[in-house]
Amino acid sequence: MNIKIEKIIKQFAKLPRVGTRAATRIVLNLLQDKNGRAEMLANALLDAAKNIHPCPICGVLTDSDICEYCGDASRQNGQLCIVRDLSDVLVLEKSGVFHGRYHVLGGNLSGVAGVTPDDLNIANIPMRIKNENIKEIIFALPNTIEGKTTQQYIISMVNDKDVSFSELASGVPLGGDLDYIDDGTLTIAFGGRKKL
Amino acid sequence: MNIKIEKIIKQFAKLPRVGTRAATRIVLNLLQDKNGRAEMLANALLDAAKNIHPCPICGVLTDSDICEYCGDASRQNGQLCIVRDLSDVLVLEKSGVFHGRYHVLGGNLSGVAGVTPDDLNIANIPMRIKNENIKEIIFALPNTIEGKTTQQYIISMVNDKDVSFSELASGVPLGGDLDYIDDGTLTIAFGGRKKL
Repeated sequence: MNIKIEKIIKQFAKLPRVGTRAATRIVLNLLQDKNGRAEMLANALLDAAKNIHPCPICGVLTDSDICEYCGDASRQNGQLCIVRDLSDVLVLEKSGVFHGRYHVLGGNLSGVAGVTPDDLNIANIPMRIKNENIKEIIFALPNTIEGKTTQQYIISMVNDKDVSFSELASGVPLGGDLDYIDDGTLTIAFGGRKKL
Repeated sequence: MNIKIEKIIKQFAKLPRVGTRAATRIVLNLLQDKNGRAEMLANALLDAAKNIHPCPICGVLTDSDICEYCGDASRQNGQLCIVRDLSDVLVLEKSGVFHGRYHVLGGNLSGVAGVTPDDLNIANIPMRIKNENIKEIIFALPNTIEGKTTQQYIISMVNDKDVSFSELASGVPLGGDLDYIDDGTLTIAFGGRKKL
């Protein structure tokens, strides 16, 4: 196998959700394409890498000074939804369940992985609460130890009586078969059972 | 969602084995990377697209005049293995089962998809037989109607009494559970059963 091709396959294989097999297929497909798709993709990527940057307020990627959510006055409704990654914003936007402002942390605190508050987009949350008149912080973080730790850290950092905090409900997902639910979720769902 | 990001996600989603979900993850990951991985990948791709081309003899991608297989004299052993795609060459090379020369067709004849001999790397096979003193042509094409049609077309085109033709054996794969084997394979495996 040609070394140049092997090198680029290795680079593709490092992308999330792409292994060596898929990377090989992708690279061979691109390099054999007669319509110059490899160049098109590469140029689009270069252009994006140059012009796209995180919104200085919330961390959502944008090619403007501030992102579409922070620039939308109708979203200043006093609610701030704190998520781990940009992809979580996309999921929430697709569901249409939330119409306030977002805050992307870029990760969760983790002793194991050595992620400290300085590594995350946390410091400017108090300023946002003031500037944007935030009344409720909704945590949409992963339901994990790291997620809960991060949540707790932010609550104690904000320390503002005028701000209420909430987190997404835990339980059995819609259509979830009890056979496939882990014990932890079952315990939480049981403890939080609703009277009918 | 920013339009520029959406556009590049759409381009990634068109790659083989990548859907919208994986493309979103890949693009967000690349654009948020602080080590400039997006630029590195784009530049590697541009470089490859400029320098990599199919070997004029066999169709394998290379950045030299001819590919590593056609340039390797020890591989001129009278055997020519005809495959559909470059990825098939990689699979065969990984297995170490074949040590002759390859010929990549770039597809199979197909009435439905409108693939004619002119669309494939077929025309120079007779010249290769002469130049490289080929004595056996081994078809490693897909076990499909299109594969068999292509095979038949090449046999009648070559029409050379000094060249023998063979194809890979059909049957139950190693570790193959009969429950999961289709009827066609079972019929072939049954008809070709080996006396013990």
